[in-house]
Amino acid sequence: MRLAVLAVALSLSFAAQAKEGMWVPQQLPEIAGPLKQAGLELPPEQLANLTGDPMGAVVALGGCTASFVSPEGLVVTNHHCAYGAIQLNSTAERNLIKDGFNAATLADEVSAGPNARVYVMDRITDVTDKMQAAAGSTAGLARQQALEAAQKALIAECESEAGYRCTLYSFFSGQTWRLFRQIEIKDVRLVYAPPGSIGNYGGEVDNWMWPRHTGDFSFYRAYVGKDGKPAAYSQDNVPFKPAQYLRLATDALEAGDFVMVAGYPGTTNRYALFDEFQAVSTWQYPVVGQHLKNLVALVEAAGKDDAELAVKYAATIRGWQNAMKNWDGQLEGFARIDASATKRAEEDAVLAWLRAQGKQGEAGLSAHARLVELAAEARATRERDLVVGQIAGTGLLGNLRMLHRLAIESAKPDAERAPGYQQRDLPGIQGAIQQLDRRYDPKMEKQLLAYWLREYLKLPANQRVAAIDAWLGGNDEAAITRALDATYAGTTLAGTDARLALMTASQADVEAHADPLLKLAVSLAPVLKEIEDAGKARSGDQNLHRPVYLAAVQSYKRSQGQGVYPDANLSLRITYGNVMGYSPKDGVAYTPFTSLDGLAAKATGVEPFDAPKNQLDAIAAMSAQQKAAIPVNFLSDLDITGGNSGSPVLNGKGELVGLAFDGNWESVSSNWVFDPAMTRMISVDHRYMVWIMDKVFPAPNLLKEMGATR
Amino acid sequence: MRLAVLAVALSLSFAAQAKEGMWVPQQLPEIAGPLKQAGLELPPEQLANLTGDPMGAVVALGGCTASFVSPEGLVVTNHHCAYGAIQLNSTAERNLIKDGFNAATLADEVSAGPNARVYVMDRITDVTDKMQAAAGSTAGLARQQALEAAQKALIAECESEAGYRCTLYSFFSGQTWRLFRQIEIKDVRLVYAPPGSIGNYGGEVDNWMWPRHTGDFSFYRAYVGKDGKPAAYSQDNVPFKPAQYLRLATDALEAGDFVMVAGYPGTTNRYALFDEFQAVSTWQYPVVGQHLKNLVALVEAAGKDDAELAVKYAATIRGWQNAMKNWDGQLEGFARIDASATKRAEEDAVLAWLRAQGKQGEAGLSAHARLVELAAEARATRERDLVVGQIAGTGLLGNLRMLHRLAIESAKPDAERAPGYQQRDLPGIQGAIQQLDRRYDPKMEKQLLAYWLREYLKLPANQRVAAIDAWLGGNDEAAITRALDATYAGTTLAGTDARLALMTASQADVEAHADPLLKLAVSLAPVLKEIEDAGKARSGDQNLHRPVYLAAVQSYKRSQGQGVYPDANLSLRITYGNVMGYSPKDGVAYTPFTSLDGLAAKATGVEPFDAPKNQLDAIAAMSAQQKAAIPVNFLSDLDITGGNSGSPVLNGKGELVGLAFDGNWESVSSNWVFDPAMTRMISVDHRYMVWIMDKVFPAPNLLKEMGATR
Repeated sequence: MRLAVLAVALSLSFAAQAKEGMWVPQQLPEIAGPLKQAGLELPPEQLANLTGDPMGAVVALGGCTASFVSPEGLVVTNHHCAYGAIQLNSTAERNLIKDGFNAATLADEVSAGPNARVYVMDRITDVTDKMQAAAGSTAGLARQQALEAAQKALIAECESEAGYRCTLYSFFSGQTWRLFRQIEIKDVRLVYAPPGSIGNYGGEVDNWMWPRHTGDFSFYRAYVGKDGKPAAYSQDNVPFKPAQYLRLATDALEAGDFVMVAGYPGTTNRYALFDEFQAVSTWQYPVVGQHLKNLVALVEAAGKDDAELAVKYAATIRGWQNAMKNWDGQLEGFARIDASATKRAEEDAVLAWLRAQGKQGEAGLSAHARLVELAAEARATRERDLVVGQIAGTGLLGNLRMLHRLAIESAKPDAERAPGYQQRDLPGIQGAIQQLDRRYDPKMEKQLLAYWLREYLKLPANQRVAAIDAWLGGNDEAAITRALDATYAGTTLAGTDARLALMTASQADVEAHADPLLKLAVSLAPVLKEIEDAGKARSGDQNLHRPVYLAAVQSYKRSQGQGVYPDANLSLRITYGNVMGYSPKDGVAYTPFTSLDGLAAKATGVEPFDAPKNQLDAIAAMSAQQKAAIPVNFLSDLDITGGNSGSPVLNGKGELVGLAFDGNWESVSSNWVFDPAMTRMISVDHRYMVWIMDKVFPAPNLLKEMGATR
Repeated sequence: MRLAVLAVALSLSFAAQAKEGMWVPQQLPEIAGPLKQAGLELPPEQLANLTGDPMGAVVALGGCTASFVSPEGLVVTNHHCAYGAIQLNSTAERNLIKDGFNAATLADEVSAGPNARVYVMDRITDVTDKMQAAAGSTAGLARQQALEAAQKALIAECESEAGYRCTLYSFFSGQTWRLFRQIEIKDVRLVYAPPGSIGNYGGEVDNWMWPRHTGDFSFYRAYVGKDGKPAAYSQDNVPFKPAQYLRLATDALEAGDFVMVAGYPGTTNRYALFDEFQAVSTWQYPVVGQHLKNLVALVEAAGKDDAELAVKYAATIRGWQNAMKNWDGQLEGFARIDASATKRAEEDAVLAWLRAQGKQGEAGLSAHARLVELAAEARATRERDLVVGQIAGTGLLGNLRMLHRLAIESAKPDAERAPGYQQRDLPGIQGAIQQLDRRYDPKMEKQLLAYWLREYLKLPANQRVAAIDAWLGGNDEAAITRALDATYAGTTLAGTDARLALMTASQADVEAHADPLLKLAVSLAPVLKEIEDAGKARSGDQNLHRPVYLAAVQSYKRSQGQGVYPDANLSLRITYGNVMGYSPKDGVAYTPFTSLDGLAAKATGVEPFDAPKNQLDAIAAMSAQQKAAIPVNFLSDLDITGGNSGSPVLNGKGELVGLAFDGNWESVSSNWVFDPAMTRMISVDHRYMVWIMDKVFPAPNLLKEMGATR
């Protein structure tokens, strides 16, 4: 009882100081004071050592974060981050998603797949000078191309020593460039995953939600060659010996306690201009979102009497629905905090401050003016860009368009090819061609294209595309039906083999091909290139002006006593704060810890609330005191986003107290405008992880390896 | 912020001691200690004086509770308790439900209607000896009839002095009988009602729910003749001068504070036997509840293509739906707290204790055994009793059955007639006859009867009713259709006038009438009388045995150190406890106060969330500190039920801090098995009432009359 009481009390009194900020390691001197004040017991400068303890234990998986938790290369991350590996090792007889996986010995650990990676931080180099020198005084498309070329060169040079992956990150939109070099461990093995009824308890129903009771954790192990160097999977490989690994916390984590997270957050847009925010909040989310809803309705109607079609498009509409749900959540959040007014006011304050600086403010003001123009340029053709992009990306037509582009790019040296069409991308392209068979129905594809063609016909005359007009041969529904029927009746490329054969065709061969659908795909190439180049030209110009404007924003914010951190960009960040709940609405408080009793109360026996019987029995047999010692999930006010999944949550001593695995529903809008009152991180408590591994799905060897005493 | 924090903290730490108990005033010596301990600052014995301060200010309205709040007879109660009076004074041009009512002067106050009453406590007399003497050693039907006769005599004697209403209440099922004499004020006037968008904010959506933001308050004024005696409405009447009235609290009510309520709760069943509870929890709520759902579905299907029919049956299905919702809520609560196991264990403990008492326990054990038999008797015919009751109560057939009974009862002296058929009931009967026209459609009535007749055909042979068998003339669907078609085609009594004419017919005339539907109604009379008398016989026997068993239960409970209070029975009760929230589920806490910001956040502009614009403007213009001073609704752990609506909530000094107006959803099952963790009372805060009357729908004169300083 006491825990819960404290919890809420603290949650509310701390609420005003929720910890916005995804700090780059280089900012540690700046945040050392606040870190200590919030409760960090380690010397803050210790965190600046990215290969030291504890930061050296934090690794990237590509899309997720993880951490070493033993000297033998044991890695802990979220169950949902290991999902692909768990699925890959499942068979018809042995469903690991359902039953879980538990390697009794090292020999029982299985490959997480040829593409699984563990990236261990090696070094970070500031390359701003080099990038600026490469770009020089160019602008537009030329600047963008110069930056891309410089990036490729820097990465190639950095990766010339085997065993490393290098990534170039831009901070504040090109104000600073940093080259990260990471050890690329290529033999990653699945060690332990609880049954889905624990690891994914609550499933989609509870996704983004609180109260939460998900055991979202799994274990990998990193393997390297006998020489200690990264190597592809081999039975002879040995566990990697990390320089650093995390220890499990021994003190009980309580409400109000300091926690921090190191991880690899993907994208935020907190420095977007008001006009850019508006494009998202008044057009992309509501208008494009409505298109997605319409498409879902089309597919669902068609699938009602055609089970096979329904299965083929299930993944497609799930993708649309996920986007819709997320966008609607963001719109809800924008409305709740009046994000539009906040953005407007913030930007106006910056501009007013710049004007007050006289001559010194001029560069910032003129950069801002140019960025506003660029936003208007993007806005001017966004409907056309959307419609053409959607048409060119639909199913079989999209597949053929990709093959045409592949033929064009394949003629160039590999390093000069467009991203996605290089030698290393070929397996992915082949996979996309092969998968189409299970995701394509000509009836449905024609309906989807008809939907977008109707939108196309609404475009103003000056945005029409000659190739599409010519193919349609008319401006009405009849023309759409006629063109689609003729094209799809005539295509001979619906078969996988016919398309696979085109993977090695030359540009001339593809463009000379008689297939009517391929002809359509080829005819779209010029407009697609035009859209692509216009985007790149805007990027080049933005690269010229945005760093200038953001420097002004930084100066303004510092003048107001506010800390400034760059938007998330998949690079390593530190965020810190405290364990605390929040009030989702008047009269209701969310308490920061959930309990085993709460988990049991949700159990219905039906997925996703199908907690294992032995787990429920174990809970039923425990005393209230025993249960109070095992919280399940907890809330804190840390600032994370997608990519942080699996991040270790550390206490003030730098010990592991849990894994971040989700944000709350109210936080989805924080990628654009941070809401300190409602943004919360959801973590699985390490005590629940240990309890599961002790009592429910036992892995005594792993507990011993991690030094867990129970 | 501080308020909310404290609130939850207290809510959880107090949760274990939620205050079960609807104490009768005679129990004050018993609860004096606990009352002081909980925070009562008045001498507890002061509450025993039912005509003193503050208890003398508490009045009954018949179905609701209210209180005097000025020396000029001003009465405050819930908006939903004054609803009938507000509706009565509405016209097509002047919708008081929507717009509210606000009498500028006494002369503007309007009659709440001829049936509106304010009952002021005068005295309570213990008449147990007289009732026991009247019943003597009789049993069964004879005992019940003797008790009814004695009751009539006692009431008639008590009411022989004009201006009083007397009511006999049985406590612990006849262990104690008390005669209440109340001043019956018959001229009640509507003084003030906020617009429905305040008084009923949240409407059905928020009914039973938390968080809540309803301004559920209105004002009446009691008027009497110039001689100070009760009198029917007259322009010459003057405001009643109550001996006592409540003062508004001046200290801010906070979480954890002591509160108490005096009022007139209707019915609880906390001393029901396990078997009686089972009849409700495994049959009435789920099985009869399913019948209601089926009937709703029938009406909804028929109404889909027939708007007129849908309107006619709207009120009928709303009644069924309300019962269904409440019953389902109770079942949910029973499941949550495993009420069945609790009841079983409690009863087993009493029986074990009685057995351990040897000879002294025998009377209790044998009374228990007899009550178990009586429950079994009721169970044996419950399906038949339900089916026959439903058939005989349906629409036009029910109307005719009532007219037949009226003819029978009218032959007796008024005092000897069955309840509901006395002289004073005639206006009600006439109303029922006239209203039928707007609630009757022969197609629908035949469908509803067919439903119950199908159930009838499922009864075992020994429960069949000769009259129904004869009328049906068969055992299948065809017989049902044939009998219904013929009877409804042949009836001449579907017209209102034809039925009104029967109100004065003799029994012989009614029974000789040729109408086929009336013949059916007449033929049902014997079985209905049989069911009625069997019920009365069981009541008589229960009256003999239940007081004995409940005396044993009381002894047992006292032996366990538990307080014992009788089930609610519409008589005056006191309940006390503290302001506190609760946790509806793991990870979620409901805080005890709601705020103006929360009210504004709910506003959609659409009923029932159509908060008035000037209210929203006023909130928007307030500072956080100003808003913090005006809570809207609050939770406390008091034990109330239907009938307590409008009850004054008093602080430790006996000052008015709010009005009770609802229980939370989790409390609906507490009428059978009290759940201390989840049972909460919902009240409107007096500060919100005053704020509304000051800033939103101003009534400065009333505020002055109540001594409100703002």
